[in-house]
Amino acid sequence: MDGTQDKLSVGAVTPSVARFDEPLKLRSGATLGGYELVYETYGTLNAGKSNAVLVCHALNAAHHVAGYYADDPDNVGWWDNMIGPGKPLDTTRFFVIGVNNLGGCFGSTGPRSVNPATGRVWGADFPVVTVEDWVASQARLADQLGIQRFAAVMGGSLGAMQALSWTIQYPERIGHALVIACAPNLSAQNIAFNEVARQAIITDPDFHAGHYYEHNTQPTRGLRVARMVGHITYLSDDEMASKFGRQLRNGKLNYTFDVEFEIESYLRHQGNKFSDYFDANTYLRITKALDYFDPAAEHGGNLSLALEPATASFLVISFTTDWRFSPERSREIIKALLDNRRDVTYAEIDAPHGHDAFLLDDARYHRLVAAYFDRISKDLGA
Amino acid sequence: MDGTQDKLSVGAVTPSVARFDEPLKLRSGATLGGYELVYETYGTLNAGKSNAVLVCHALNAAHHVAGYYADDPDNVGWWDNMIGPGKPLDTTRFFVIGVNNLGGCFGSTGPRSVNPATGRVWGADFPVVTVEDWVASQARLADQLGIQRFAAVMGGSLGAMQALSWTIQYPERIGHALVIACAPNLSAQNIAFNEVARQAIITDPDFHAGHYYEHNTQPTRGLRVARMVGHITYLSDDEMASKFGRQLRNGKLNYTFDVEFEIESYLRHQGNKFSDYFDANTYLRITKALDYFDPAAEHGGNLSLALEPATASFLVISFTTDWRFSPERSREIIKALLDNRRDVTYAEIDAPHGHDAFLLDDARYHRLVAAYFDRISKDLGA
Repeated sequence: MDGTQDKLSVGAVTPSVARFDEPLKLRSGATLGGYELVYETYGTLNAGKSNAVLVCHALNAAHHVAGYYADDPDNVGWWDNMIGPGKPLDTTRFFVIGVNNLGGCFGSTGPRSVNPATGRVWGADFPVVTVEDWVASQARLADQLGIQRFAAVMGGSLGAMQALSWTIQYPERIGHALVIACAPNLSAQNIAFNEVARQAIITDPDFHAGHYYEHNTQPTRGLRVARMVGHITYLSDDEMASKFGRQLRNGKLNYTFDVEFEIESYLRHQGNKFSDYFDANTYLRITKALDYFDPAAEHGGNLSLALEPATASFLVISFTTDWRFSPERSREIIKALLDNRRDVTYAEIDAPHGHDAFLLDDARYHRLVAAYFDRISKDLGA
Repeated sequence: MDGTQDKLSVGAVTPSVARFDEPLKLRSGATLGGYELVYETYGTLNAGKSNAVLVCHALNAAHHVAGYYADDPDNVGWWDNMIGPGKPLDTTRFFVIGVNNLGGCFGSTGPRSVNPATGRVWGADFPVVTVEDWVASQARLADQLGIQRFAAVMGGSLGAMQALSWTIQYPERIGHALVIACAPNLSAQNIAFNEVARQAIITDPDFHAGHYYEHNTQPTRGLRVARMVGHITYLSDDEMASKFGRQLRNGKLNYTFDVEFEIESYLRHQGNKFSDYFDANTYLRITKALDYFDPAAEHGGNLSLALEPATASFLVISFTTDWRFSPERSREIIKALLDNRRDVTYAEIDAPHGHDAFLLDDARYHRLVAAYFDRISKDLGA
């Protein structure tokens, strides 16, 4: 019993599709004509439309944030432990929206979609999209749903970058930002890991310069390696040590290039699984969006200036063993917010799980988020 | 001026080849028939043959440790800043030996050699070799050179593992072990990075199950990715931040998959360079030797028991920002040595350079090694 069994799921959910015909000018300079976004909602939008919470996804996730599909009950949303009736983000009080970002591979317009200009699949020609572009497209979705202002925008990792960007791009449209396991930009080391992943994909002969759909193939080998290297950065060294250590797969060494250690088996499994369901062109674009995110850049590197427009209240959470986006990086955000005298709550959660901790059911972490949403709920008079 | 310009090089050097006809039984159970080792020596072996120092190489290096080649003066040995007249390992006092390990790709018998049993290049059929096998083959080289006992065996990283293994396998044949930037075994995270590198190589279509020589090709793509991921682990996060940070290659973002950030350019360059001169089958075997090294394993994980036979004196050095083999890992060795009441000097050098620090010309580090060799020299009555 971890204390969650008595909480309820949002139950069977159904994705919706929103169509946007007005072209979207992207940060790259390119313009995307019409596009579609797939999204899910949980809970009920109140009469004042004031209880909406947008949940932004990170690298490999999508709009299926909570609940399950009636025809696929094992397909549970990626943040189901966080969102549902009685859960930290309580769907009996809030109206929660999950959306697959532009360029994604789970239904929203992306590299696998047909380019209306050519009648062919976009593939490599799908433009590079940024965190800012995603936020702009999410704002249009809010318009379509009649939501003028979000009670909160929330995310972990790359999802948290979107929450942060919301406070800068649309300060009047966001009451609270929940910025979890985040950094104000990628370090050289972070970019380096992304670049290894990209090179593994791009140099896979099955990549065909990004037009692999036309060849009825995909760069599975590259995507596997990309996911393996990613996975190393999601777990802490300690967590790997306690979960796998030097445990042998078959009890003894075989002196071959087959799996010897459990950690090798785990990584290969993760790589295989990922390459079965994820799209390489999407992966490339998401890592680029991570690389590019740097709100301070257009303010001479001054994050305090970048966050000056923000009026939201903030909950910022980091995890002690997260070496991908370490607590030090979250503290840069805190400093910039305090420079602007913003309302900030900050916690460093002592958790062994590394970057992935934001997805896990840690009691202290979840209590904190629950308490924060209680406060938002009270402010709304809900 | 960093204080080294007044020190001399060992000058132009020439490699030698030693031939061994007695079969070598390997840890894997396989037996290697005759084999050759390429080696270099610097300085003069004294009459008592007591001043020999063996320098063991790490992942991508070889027997060319110091000096240069008359016909290729830019090809300077990989530890030339450490070894030479007046340098920390002073070749006016010591006779220094560098050897390319078995399975290597710089002249010693390895995957690119011809298998006498078949008349074909070994390729994938070359056996898996371990640190213990290397040490055994190095002992035979010592025999051939008439060296009964090394004044010292020295190495960094994987080279240090060989020095450590010398103290266990041939305690009577080694006076001092210099164990630099080492760990008593790889962590799960270390193995994970090696496995990513191996999978990048093995799944490259040009790998041809290790028989790529016969196809007149090599898995260049895989080797590039392997080297890129390795490089990330050799540098510290801080060093990457100060060397590259988020510096753009062309002064502005281009929103393409070409190089945007300097760190990407650096990694691609390192990957390309490496794949031009290194052999993939050798790389696979060296990463395996790293994975397998674990002297405590056959003592129920008790490193103190494993080091019980060792009688050498030890200089152990770690570097504060080395996250591949952190100071904590060196302290495990220290604890085990102290449990055995061995003579140990230990230093943690405050250096920003990460794991690669052992190769760099850090004044405090070099002074320490120089002082230690002074002591060895005095003990020898030299």
